Amino acid sequence: MIYLDNAATSYPKPEEVYEAVLHHMKHVGANPGRSGHQLALEAGRGIFGTRELIASLFNIDNPMQIIFTSNATEALNLAMKGVLKKGDHVITSSMEHNSVLRPIKALEDIGVENTIIKCDSDGSLSPEDIKYAIKNNTKMVVLTNASNVTGTIMPIKEVGKITKEAGILFLVDGAQTAGIYDIDVKQMNIDLLALPGHKGLMGPQGTGILYIREGIDVMHFKEGGTGSKSEELTQPDMLPDRYESGTSNAPGIVGLGAGIEFILKEGLDKIRNHEKQLTHYFIEELKKIEMVKIYGPKDAEKQGAVISINIGDEDSSEIAFILDKVFNIAVRSGLHCAPMAHRTIGSFEQGTVRFSIGYFNTKEDIDKAIEAIKNICEQI
Amino acid sequence: MIYLDNAATSYPKPEEVYEAVLHHMKHVGANPGRSGHQLALEAGRGIFGTRELIASLFNIDNPMQIIFTSNATEALNLAMKGVLKKGDHVITSSMEHNSVLRPIKALEDIGVENTIIKCDSDGSLSPEDIKYAIKNNTKMVVLTNASNVTGTIMPIKEVGKITKEAGILFLVDGAQTAGIYDIDVKQMNIDLLALPGHKGLMGPQGTGILYIREGIDVMHFKEGGTGSKSEELTQPDMLPDRYESGTSNAPGIVGLGAGIEFILKEGLDKIRNHEKQLTHYFIEELKKIEMVKIYGPKDAEKQGAVISINIGDEDSSEIAFILDKVFNIAVRSGLHCAPMAHRTIGSFEQGTVRFSIGYFNTKEDIDKAIEAIKNICEQI
Repeated sequence: MIYLDNAATSYPKPEEVYEAVLHHMKHVGANPGRSGHQLALEAGRGIFGTRELIASLFNIDNPMQIIFTSNATEALNLAMKGVLKKGDHVITSSMEHNSVLRPIKALEDIGVENTIIKCDSDGSLSPEDIKYAIKNNTKMVVLTNASNVTGTIMPIKEVGKITKEAGILFLVDGAQTAGIYDIDVKQMNIDLLALPGHKGLMGPQGTGILYIREGIDVMHFKEGGTGSKSEELTQPDMLPDRYESGTSNAPGIVGLGAGIEFILKEGLDKIRNHEKQLTHYFIEELKKIEMVKIYGPKDAEKQGAVISINIGDEDSSEIAFILDKVFNIAVRSGLHCAPMAHRTIGSFEQGTVRFSIGYFNTKEDIDKAIEAIKNICEQI
Repeated sequence: MIYLDNAATSYPKPEEVYEAVLHHMKHVGANPGRSGHQLALEAGRGIFGTRELIASLFNIDNPMQIIFTSNATEALNLAMKGVLKKGDHVITSSMEHNSVLRPIKALEDIGVENTIIKCDSDGSLSPEDIKYAIKNNTKMVVLTNASNVTGTIMPIKEVGKITKEAGILFLVDGAQTAGIYDIDVKQMNIDLLALPGHKGLMGPQGTGILYIREGIDVMHFKEGGTGSKSEELTQPDMLPDRYESGTSNAPGIVGLGAGIEFILKEGLDKIRNHEKQLTHYFIEELKKIEMVKIYGPKDAEKQGAVISINIGDEDSSEIAFILDKVFNIAVRSGLHCAPMAHRTIGSFEQGTVRFSIGYFNTKEDIDKAIEAIKNICEQI
């Protein structure tokens, strides 16, 4: 199986991640932050270790401002719904995932207005459009760091300057870039950063992250046992406890720590360059195939390792099915939970066939994918 | 290390659980319910398999009514906040965990009334007290199946009759009983059942369950990608997708499936009888030690495998510390995230030292715990 579905979840993970999860389950096991015995303390240290690694990777001063969630979707929901109130206005782009757009649509019901900036047909966004959309009641800009459909990299740094100047919160969805591209919350003026643990960060599924800049009051949406201030019937205010009620996914979080250690050891540059090279090569080879329509910037400098295509007018699901069944190549077809992105790039009816490259892919994988696509084109 | 902290999380897990998690991470890996390739489909089948096992264990007709959450706390929050609205009244007991009481206290802010029934000093509850507390606007009764402080088993079946007759929803917190005691949602008239995956069900941490009886409209609190109806910007209504936005904890859920398979293979009776025998033996031996005060029913027929004690007026944390450091015995001290339960049994200031027995504990473990307690008593 050639796995080219890394935008959904990275696979495989580094061997160290498997080992960390297994070691934690087998030899630590206890519930972190609750009891005070050796195993519980070790579990707590494991989780704190991952918080420190995350802080280091994203230039976050205080690891306690890092909240573990079950996935990036939960982190995005928490960040938006915990901040936006009736009468507020939020700005986002048409290239967002449903994990951003569906909460924003749901917030309309409680009187939160929104402006969805239409991006260009290659998925790109002009920062000026954000600036222009800011109103008196604008509270937040939500933007993906890179599209999960076309890989288009968004001008985060430029938008961060605009939001900072305007005194507006900036929430970034780093689902497609964390662990591959530099994300510096201070340099980029990111107030809230939502991340999956299981994509570029190489951790297990079941892990997500929300960074909350100090001083921002985000309303929690779950109360429960926190192992702290147990005598009180109200949720404690302190972070991260306020947002982490109930038993944490300790093996997952420790596995995520191992994933980030792997990334720090390899180096972001090396990881990114490898993916860039393969992306560049793939795009250039695709350009040579007449029947293939490539979406997005078609430029590895302007996009992450996500390449969406179609073959003529063929149904994207049918192509993905053939890639899987005949060529043993795993990709994702359809709308990728981002319908507005497909409307933006003009593929709403057809969807696209999405190839997403990971650090463990090789040039041989890309060659086989190209060969398979050529073969399919010939058969049609 | 003698692990007697199974009420926090069961440890160790059956070998099959470790194997299932590792196998899934290493050899399946993909994102379930999203892409259509072989690995993604296998991941989806793994998750559905766990749903079916849960349905079988709790006599649930339709596995699609089973929602995966990150822990029992999330399941309880969803069940309460998704149903209770301004003007509603909810009844619960004073033996509940903060995962029930804190959300109920938070719901006061939006105008949801509550009655908290004071239990007896052994933690027991009279079903008549529930009946008596029902008012015209009572919408729900929330009750733990067994206290996490004293193990006291609650009269679920009797309360289920009362709520059914009164046309009120019945939410049960099965954190301390699932996988050990029979829970039959139909026989017991349970409308909503919240469970952790990582305690008696033997699954990994990071897993929780909410069963929702068909016909109950529970408002979701997260929107996002569901892999279904991707073309729509509103959350799909169908279960379980409505509540499972974003990437699932697939390795955790598959591990949970292996845990439940282990339970079904061993048989609930065998598991329960083993824990009952050890509980009975432990209580009887504890009764012989003069300085020990035992809380709860002191009767293995009336309590789960959770035994709270104190030694004279000694600080419970100090005793737990000695048990850990000197005797290598892991227990939990303090308030166990259930302050009102401690007020009920009269241990709010001191907390208790809680021993919680699991299926993998042996008579030798109990002997060593008794020996350690005797030793501590002599030193004081």
